[in-house]
Amino acid sequence: MNSNMSTNSLLESLEKNAPRHLEELIQWLRIPSVSSDSTHKDDVIEAATWLADKFRGAGLAVEILPTEGHPMVLAETPPVDGAPVVVVYGHYDVQPVEPLDQWITGPFEPTVRQGNLYARGATDDKGQVLTHVQSVCDALAEGRPLPIQIKFLIEGEEEVGSENLERMLPDLAERMACDCVVISDSGQYSDGQPAITYGLRGIATYELKIDGPSQDLHSGSFGGAVMNPAIALSHVLSSIVDSNGRIQLPGYYDDVVELSDQERKAWQALPIDEAAFAKSIGVDELFGESGFTADERRWARPTFDVNGITAGHQGEGVKTIIPATASAKFSFRLVPNQDPKKVTASLETHLAQHMPPGVRYTLTPDHGAPGMLADTQSRFMAAANHAIEAAFGKKPVLIREGGSIPIVTRFQEVLQCDCLLLGWGLSDDNAHSPNEKFRIADYHRGIRASALLWDELGKLKSAP
Amino acid sequence: MNSNMSTNSLLESLEKNAPRHLEELIQWLRIPSVSSDSTHKDDVIEAATWLADKFRGAGLAVEILPTEGHPMVLAETPPVDGAPVVVVYGHYDVQPVEPLDQWITGPFEPTVRQGNLYARGATDDKGQVLTHVQSVCDALAEGRPLPIQIKFLIEGEEEVGSENLERMLPDLAERMACDCVVISDSGQYSDGQPAITYGLRGIATYELKIDGPSQDLHSGSFGGAVMNPAIALSHVLSSIVDSNGRIQLPGYYDDVVELSDQERKAWQALPIDEAAFAKSIGVDELFGESGFTADERRWARPTFDVNGITAGHQGEGVKTIIPATASAKFSFRLVPNQDPKKVTASLETHLAQHMPPGVRYTLTPDHGAPGMLADTQSRFMAAANHAIEAAFGKKPVLIREGGSIPIVTRFQEVLQCDCLLLGWGLSDDNAHSPNEKFRIADYHRGIRASALLWDELGKLKSAP
Repeated sequence: MNSNMSTNSLLESLEKNAPRHLEELIQWLRIPSVSSDSTHKDDVIEAATWLADKFRGAGLAVEILPTEGHPMVLAETPPVDGAPVVVVYGHYDVQPVEPLDQWITGPFEPTVRQGNLYARGATDDKGQVLTHVQSVCDALAEGRPLPIQIKFLIEGEEEVGSENLERMLPDLAERMACDCVVISDSGQYSDGQPAITYGLRGIATYELKIDGPSQDLHSGSFGGAVMNPAIALSHVLSSIVDSNGRIQLPGYYDDVVELSDQERKAWQALPIDEAAFAKSIGVDELFGESGFTADERRWARPTFDVNGITAGHQGEGVKTIIPATASAKFSFRLVPNQDPKKVTASLETHLAQHMPPGVRYTLTPDHGAPGMLADTQSRFMAAANHAIEAAFGKKPVLIREGGSIPIVTRFQEVLQCDCLLLGWGLSDDNAHSPNEKFRIADYHRGIRASALLWDELGKLKSAP
Repeated sequence: MNSNMSTNSLLESLEKNAPRHLEELIQWLRIPSVSSDSTHKDDVIEAATWLADKFRGAGLAVEILPTEGHPMVLAETPPVDGAPVVVVYGHYDVQPVEPLDQWITGPFEPTVRQGNLYARGATDDKGQVLTHVQSVCDALAEGRPLPIQIKFLIEGEEEVGSENLERMLPDLAERMACDCVVISDSGQYSDGQPAITYGLRGIATYELKIDGPSQDLHSGSFGGAVMNPAIALSHVLSSIVDSNGRIQLPGYYDDVVELSDQERKAWQALPIDEAAFAKSIGVDELFGESGFTADERRWARPTFDVNGITAGHQGEGVKTIIPATASAKFSFRLVPNQDPKKVTASLETHLAQHMPPGVRYTLTPDHGAPGMLADTQSRFMAAANHAIEAAFGKKPVLIREGGSIPIVTRFQEVLQCDCLLLGWGLSDDNAHSPNEKFRIADYHRGIRASALLWDELGKLKSAP
């Protein structure tokens, strides 16, 4: 049997099983595994058990590994001598569903409308995880041994920060030893244009609290005598970024790797309509650092955002006070090669230089993670490229993503492996929002791409 | 009987009545006349009735005048041909008492400790109002006709904005026709240093709302693509005042009347210890417009204060969003001759010039009132000066106050009269705070000063 015939029979088999694939996703989505809500603790365990049963039914070695929080599901296929080892990482927990009254159909009553399956977790991440689960389980169930070893690491705490996994990863390093981690928890570039994400931004988040007078003061009797903490906060926040969107911290751009001409050219060829994009998010015009396109700024330029400000009187009506305190939460998105610790040091220097007199302040760094850049020339990238092109009927574009997935960087550090971020979702899938959905066709394409990826990676058997 | 003998007998009589004066204040303070709390509606009426009864008992003509809210108490002594007419304005309503658990003794259980009487309303304003009530009622009760006509206008809605009085004042103008309004609702300069307040600042308050994207956006996926409304707000607020405390609105200082050398000299002679003042309000150093002392800045320079800011995530933990909106409440204190309407126009121009691109905004002016300056050379001022010096044993200093009392400006406009702001309180009397108090000695000195003031004003009988 030549490779083409094998591929054809594989695709036929997937086609035949498609109704069951959908039915099983619907079953799993019915389980309300909201990890942040302790009243759903049993549901979370039920979702883990459902997945473990699915693996067990196909003959994988399975363990439900307890953590201090929700358990992880570990499962693996037999080792294949000389072939690459892949870890599939994902999560079976889901976001809360509020505001419930905005859902057209219940978040845990999966419903098909116009080719989409609506439910909490449909795209983030049960639907995407299940594409890999199905491709592997189908192969084993049908007596087609996989050409590589695949290890699943599916956790139940991604939506609450993956703290237990981050902590336990070094202890799991030997068991999870692999050449590449595959993650499907992101999206295609646009409808009809699949993508491979090869870069993520890092992050550094802070809370700044500015203290002025020991209590709120009457702005008549005291206005003019003391520095107003809310004004001090405005001055300091506005000193961090100039009117051209350029961050003013000392040395902030020193470690920034400039975009290559090749990347800029490739991205500028992407089918983005900036006016339509602006309209879709409700603004009249886009804004950002001068000299870059919106995609360049979102994916590969460091940014500063104020996430929240709290100061003084916020209720109805007028209360003419000088507030005793003012505070802000803010974050920097970092590009690969920027170190969150250096950002903190630079921020501390900047605040010391720019804080107005007459107030005291406390800067509290919250969390930091460096950005990630995968090797676009790797054999894994090439394999994924072939698999996706075959499954989606279109060559994927290489993009980066502006968000941060700290666990990916941890995988690179601890497991010393490559990473493939293969997203099957769409930007209007409403992850984290009411009416989350997953296009059913993309679910099936994802399963095909996954199955083809294992095949492609099997061809690397004799590679170095 | 010469004037000195008459004054001596007056002071002796007040001395004799002092225990009753204190007992009556305690009675009045027991009535919880919280105007902002509808559950205290009957108590407010009881406090008005108590005052009306007090006036009636001394033989004044009295009316409890209904309003759409709480009633006013009007009372007057007989007219005196050729003598000045004085209106005493004050209020019998009090602030809410929360937080109740911070009161050492109940807010409506007046208690004497270390020479102070503790109760809600002790200084603001029942205690201070009663100084004038006692001096007038004592005179009438003892058969000593007053040398001038005195009209009382004591309202029950000062702590909720005096809206009904402001609206009804034109209709009351004939009835309240007078040469001078006397108000005791402020303070001495410091312990042991009485004062006459001859100026108040005006005010202009605003709410600014900045709208960005139609919903909160993920700061990873969108950071760098859009203007962050919280950053836009910081930029705009910080553009309003520079790091030297100088307001940057176009033409903002055009109408500001500069302090005279004489005023500056007089104030610089006041016994202020700026370091002690800073310590008392909990800051390491004072701050304000360069080139002025703290008193000059608080009393006679225009200022800008941010009263509150609301944007994005304000709860626990991190939420890395670009908030959809950000808003601030802020106020300017104006000096006499600045017009709140011109400030609004100038602010609108400034915002149009300084608002970053990519956001929309709405500016909502709330209320505005001009500042007030009384004639320091008037015969009323001279009379008050003598009366206070005699009662307190020390010449009063002439000061201004940074706060705004819009009703005072309305009195000047509608009644075309002079104003005397004679405060018997101290800055640590905790008006509007837990453990409000009034020094008993200052209550009695206030009664003496009031009695002597009527006498002094009587001497103006033949004046033009």
